[in-house]
Amino acid sequence: MSRPDGRAADQLRPITITRNWQAYAEGSALVEFGETKVLCAASVQQGVPRWRKGSGLGWVTAEYAMLPRATLTRNDRESVKGRIGGRTHEISRLIGRSLRAAIDLSALGENSIAIDCDVLQADGGTRTAAITGAYVALADAVSWLRAKGALARPEPLVNSISAVSVGVIDGEPRLDLMYTEDVRAETDMNVVVTGTGEFVEVQGTAEGTPFRRDELDALLDLAVAGCADLAKFQHEALAS
Amino acid sequence: MSRPDGRAADQLRPITITRNWQAYAEGSALVEFGETKVLCAASVQQGVPRWRKGSGLGWVTAEYAMLPRATLTRNDRESVKGRIGGRTHEISRLIGRSLRAAIDLSALGENSIAIDCDVLQADGGTRTAAITGAYVALADAVSWLRAKGALARPEPLVNSISAVSVGVIDGEPRLDLMYTEDVRAETDMNVVVTGTGEFVEVQGTAEGTPFRRDELDALLDLAVAGCADLAKFQHEALAS
Amino acid sequence: MSRPDGRAADQLRPITITRNWQAYAEGSALVEFGETKVLCAASVQQGVPRWRKGSGLGWVTAEYAMLPRATLTRNDRESVKGRIGGRTHEISRLIGRSLRAAIDLSALGENSIAIDCDVLQADGGTRTAAITGAYVALADAVSWLRAKGALARPEPLVNSISAVSVGVIDGEPRLDLMYTEDVRAETDMNVVVTGTGEFVEVQGTAEGTPFRRDELDALLDLAVAGCADLAKFQHEALAS
Amino acid sequence: MSRPDGRAADQLRPITITRNWQAYAEGSALVEFGETKVLCAASVQQGVPRWRKGSGLGWVTAEYAMLPRATLTRNDRESVKGRIGGRTHEISRLIGRSLRAAIDLSALGENSIAIDCDVLQADGGTRTAAITGAYVALADAVSWLRAKGALARPEPLVNSISAVSVGVIDGEPRLDLMYTEDVRAETDMNVVVTGTGEFVEVQGTAEGTPFRRDELDALLDLAVAGCADLAKFQHEALAS
Amino acid sequence: MSRPDGRAADQLRPITITRNWQAYAEGSALVEFGETKVLCAASVQQGVPRWRKGSGLGWVTAEYAMLPRATLTRNDRESVKGRIGGRTHEISRLIGRSLRAAIDLSALGENSIAIDCDVLQADGGTRTAAITGAYVALADAVSWLRAKGALARPEPLVNSISAVSVGVIDGEPRLDLMYTEDVRAETDMNVVVTGTGEFVEVQGTAEGTPFRRDELDALLDLAVAGCADLAKFQHEALAS
Amino acid sequence: MSRPDGRAADQLRPITITRNWQAYAEGSALVEFGETKVLCAASVQQGVPRWRKGSGLGWVTAEYAMLPRATLTRNDRESVKGRIGGRTHEISRLIGRSLRAAIDLSALGENSIAIDCDVLQADGGTRTAAITGAYVALADAVSWLRAKGALARPEPLVNSISAVSVGVIDGEPRLDLMYTEDVRAETDMNVVVTGTGEFVEVQGTAEGTPFRRDELDALLDLAVAGCADLAKFQHEALAS
Repeated sequence: MSRPDGRAADQLRPITITRNWQAYAEGSALVEFGETKVLCAASVQQGVPRWRKGSGLGWVTAEYAMLPRATLTRNDRESVKGRIGGRTHEISRLIGRSLRAAIDLSALGENSIAIDCDVLQADGGTRTAAITGAYVALADAVSWLRAKGALARPEPLVNSISAVSVGVIDGEPRLDLMYTEDVRAETDMNVVVTGTGEFVEVQGTAEGTPFRRDELDALLDLAVAGCADLAKFQHEALAS
Repeated sequence: MSRPDGRAADQLRPITITRNWQAYAEGSALVEFGETKVLCAASVQQGVPRWRKGSGLGWVTAEYAMLPRATLTRNDRESVKGRIGGRTHEISRLIGRSLRAAIDLSALGENSIAIDCDVLQADGGTRTAAITGAYVALADAVSWLRAKGALARPEPLVNSISAVSVGVIDGEPRLDLMYTEDVRAETDMNVVVTGTGEFVEVQGTAEGTPFRRDELDALLDLAVAGCADLAKFQHEALAS
Repeated sequence: MSRPDGRAADQLRPITITRNWQAYAEGSALVEFGETKVLCAASVQQGVPRWRKGSGLGWVTAEYAMLPRATLTRNDRESVKGRIGGRTHEISRLIGRSLRAAIDLSALGENSIAIDCDVLQADGGTRTAAITGAYVALADAVSWLRAKGALARPEPLVNSISAVSVGVIDGEPRLDLMYTEDVRAETDMNVVVTGTGEFVEVQGTAEGTPFRRDELDALLDLAVAGCADLAKFQHEALAS
Repeated sequence: MSRPDGRAADQLRPITITRNWQAYAEGSALVEFGETKVLCAASVQQGVPRWRKGSGLGWVTAEYAMLPRATLTRNDRESVKGRIGGRTHEISRLIGRSLRAAIDLSALGENSIAIDCDVLQADGGTRTAAITGAYVALADAVSWLRAKGALARPEPLVNSISAVSVGVIDGEPRLDLMYTEDVRAETDMNVVVTGTGEFVEVQGTAEGTPFRRDELDALLDLAVAGCADLAKFQHEALAS
Repeated sequence: MSRPDGRAADQLRPITITRNWQAYAEGSALVEFGETKVLCAASVQQGVPRWRKGSGLGWVTAEYAMLPRATLTRNDRESVKGRIGGRTHEISRLIGRSLRAAIDLSALGENSIAIDCDVLQADGGTRTAAITGAYVALADAVSWLRAKGALARPEPLVNSISAVSVGVIDGEPRLDLMYTEDVRAETDMNVVVTGTGEFVEVQGTAEGTPFRRDELDALLDLAVAGCADLAKFQHEALAS
Repeated sequence: MSRPDGRAADQLRPITITRNWQAYAEGSALVEFGETKVLCAASVQQGVPRWRKGSGLGWVTAEYAMLPRATLTRNDRESVKGRIGGRTHEISRLIGRSLRAAIDLSALGENSIAIDCDVLQADGGTRTAAITGAYVALADAVSWLRAKGALARPEPLVNSISAVSVGVIDGEPRLDLMYTEDVRAETDMNVVVTGTGEFVEVQGTAEGTPFRRDELDALLDLAVAGCADLAKFQHEALAS
């Protein structure tokens, strides 16, 4: 029961985080989980949406999208279809919620940060790679605001955040599924974890048969360990 | 630390399931979790979507929506806005996935069942009420197909499915949150469980601070017990 | 030449008006004309649209919609199609115009009332049932504003308004058509009448052969009498 | 109480119908009611919509639109707004229904005729001018089909159809309202009449106060007489 | 190698410019290049778009569209399709850019002029006819502003602008292509030229084989000469 | 009068073409003109659009888009806005037309190739970089089809195609404008040239004052020389 790329069940794919890939963004990172490549950019925008004005609180949003040929076969553009699909909406919301858990919005002050996560190549785990890279872009955007003296308090980042997918394939719990594993998984879970090992999001889905409590527990253990490794990659990227 | 309506932390709101509320649907149910009211209708459609033709497999989809004045203040119609919001997309997909876990699509044969869940009044937990009511509508639609002799095999329903929300408020894990609790919850979780107590979906979100593993465990315990009660209400409704 | 449900040609179906069906709206009514069920909600919104600001006049609008399985076979949602159909537009405009004839907009002051009419079940005559129920919801919303002291003058309601469909089937003029009659009607007319028996809207259409003046006259007589009865049901509902 | 252009209350504006204004259409007419100018084109399309195939019946539809600067001030294009407004929908449907009353769809055979009515200049009564001109374009398109031997039976046109607006201004019933009259009308009615004086559509609206039966009767008399005159103009245009 | 209508290779079709065709616009012209007929209207709008406020500069935009039956076969309306096509976008932008080259926006002051070019009949060269007619409508709108005393300086028109299409058919460079020539052209070029013979836009496209520098030169010569003639027609129209 | 990056007036920026950047596409290239980075992917799709079936001819299309933070400040996504802008439409059409000039569609057989050009970073000249990179991706997709034996004839590529922008700044004609030059250009031209030095597209626009024939000639000379250099980079990339 070996994995397509020979990894151990609890092993991440090769992880690369290239900071400042896009020169004009206040923060950006190209994150790679094996063949999955996601370009994350953080854009600082002065002020906050109308419904938040005068609150003293900042705002963080995210948008996720995929290039048409990120995938094995070409997908039509959502701009051409004239509407955003349910999956895109769902993932954009997940990324935004997760990043807001990393930040104290009152310390951010009335600034907005828009995170764009564009999948350049997709080999499974694009949403968790996006969250992991987006945190790095977010941290750089916060530093940019700090350098400008535009923060309400100096340390709005209260947690680091990373994410990984886990799943059960042929009865075996595995970490960081690649595409060929993802499509075969009986249970599929995306987990967002703080640098201190607490949960921000747990989304588990029975793709085939329903799953038992002990399977859930095993998957959570894998995810927490994987996210601890990802946090180290983030830390190194931000320290470089 | 008492609840707004005086319930115990592990107690459901009053549950009512009124079968056949819409006369023309092949299955329908008005489900009430306290003041939350969702009208669920199952529509049998001959054949399956194009991409599934010739597979021998059936298909089940769901759409969730809310009347403009289901809520405390009026929401604009998505039809008028010309686009479906992210929350609607996300919940529609969750309901559809959950119901497909209840059914053996090969036994269903090449028939489609479209489930419409329209929230007439919203007091928290609309998505979980929708899943619980939709299962009843689905079961009746399957019976309708069986009576027509249109099934590939006689018993496509392999699980019953119900769902409930749980959350941590002021540090206390609670079952079946009403709206005023939902907005205050530190952690919010929607859990879809089979009649035999296994998981179909687990979606937990830290609204404020991240949550610990023991909190997650307590919430899952509450949800499993709550869904066991909901399964009884479903059984009674279908037996009547 | 008897009617499908045995009624006399000049007889309404059983009429029920349930006030306050939706708990959060400033006014609401579930109106039933036989099997036709329409949920009407009136939402008070402070202020008026931009083009009306400073005029001292209020505003009343209406939106009509149908649940997907209100009908014998399922209709796709307009929110999913991304556009509102011509029939929906036309009926929404008719309801709005009719209700504005019931109200003195200068007495209403710069307040807006949005009326939502959602057809839960459709057996013909949905637009006329909607107008009849919407008037009740509107009257309650006006009372709500009066209780708040928010009206410019105390009695903005200048007319009561009800509506009914009439048509010629097999040469016989009939009142309050049900669906199976509606599809067979040679001439089809929707008439909106005030409590004092004057006309607000007359919309007659030759579905097959053109109609003569004497047919038109007979249909108008039926409609005026039917609306007088509906006005009594409205009065009773509002008095209860 | 004289009219802005000095006409008698029961007098039409100068009427002009220019046949074949658009060279490529199977039938076309530029119709002028005073300053109101509508270009009507009939396009023959082989076959019928999918839902009508094999029925042996033809189909006639209509689309109404207005150039941005047909009016006193510019209106945004519906193509730019990305959606068709309620008024446009309503008028397009009215024109289509009216024209279908002129034609025996079984004699037309499985052919479709699409009528485009584009308002080049608007001075009131555009929908009734459109119907009056569209009949001429339709008649020519039918002749074109007859010349091709493509009709199921030789005479699908069973009625001629014309339309006119009438209204009460300062208590006086008037025929063929121009824009400055239209905005002041207490009651406004559009009436579609066959060449033999029967009704196809009657749409009356109380703009201000509700109207009495005797006012309705006076308006219908005016409209029937006005349409008889319009039918002569149509006849002359088609005979030329 | 004669042209379909017998013209010389360097000869324009019969040109007609009818000023003030639409009575309500501040400037309007019906321009005809042979069978091609385009209605151009200039609408003055007080103020400028938000992004330009306080700049002291005016703004000129253009929208191009085609009636459904301007062409040999009917085209669906862009308003019905709910989106504007690429060709429409491209031509609208070309017209707007070209007209802005005719005008000193600081002399115009903070006024906007919207130009609508609606093709009533299309026989090739609609975009160049539109530019030629739009200039006349623009000039009249500027005069209207001058008469109102609303200009920042008295002479915002700095150039006259006209446009023509040229192309190579069977190796021969030709001026002002009609539709049957346009579809056969190997190279197709639209050229916008000032009254003093300088270039505003040059858009050349190889439809089949790429073109040589000497072909390009011959086409530019033809276009410059053709535009000089068009400028005379414009001058006469504006002088009348 | 030196350029921002010290280049000579007739000098290209540093050019890089990285083949096969996207692993799943049948052809792909990341093209860089200085800081401008465009990812081009060619997707082979079996068959041709419906209107072309049975013609024996293939089809090539292109779509151009920009990541939100490719630019100095963030642009909203067209997918979120629900419509594609005029500039995007115009450039997509230009790229498609240009590439079709490179290929013999009858030799391609009934195969379609869709080219996606996504701008990852924008520093001027994105459309010309896109065409230059797209040709490389196209060439690889053609090779992929040849290797499959799916071509009608072995050599559908009849020209190589490259493109460059040129413009007049402060009276000086310059090659390959970067963004800060582009916004200051008096005249701006995009030129698409074959490997043998003939023209496929010439699009010149007077941004400020109209331009003279001698300026046009100087710009064309620069563009032809620049494209000859780009053709060498393409050749090297494809030979590697």
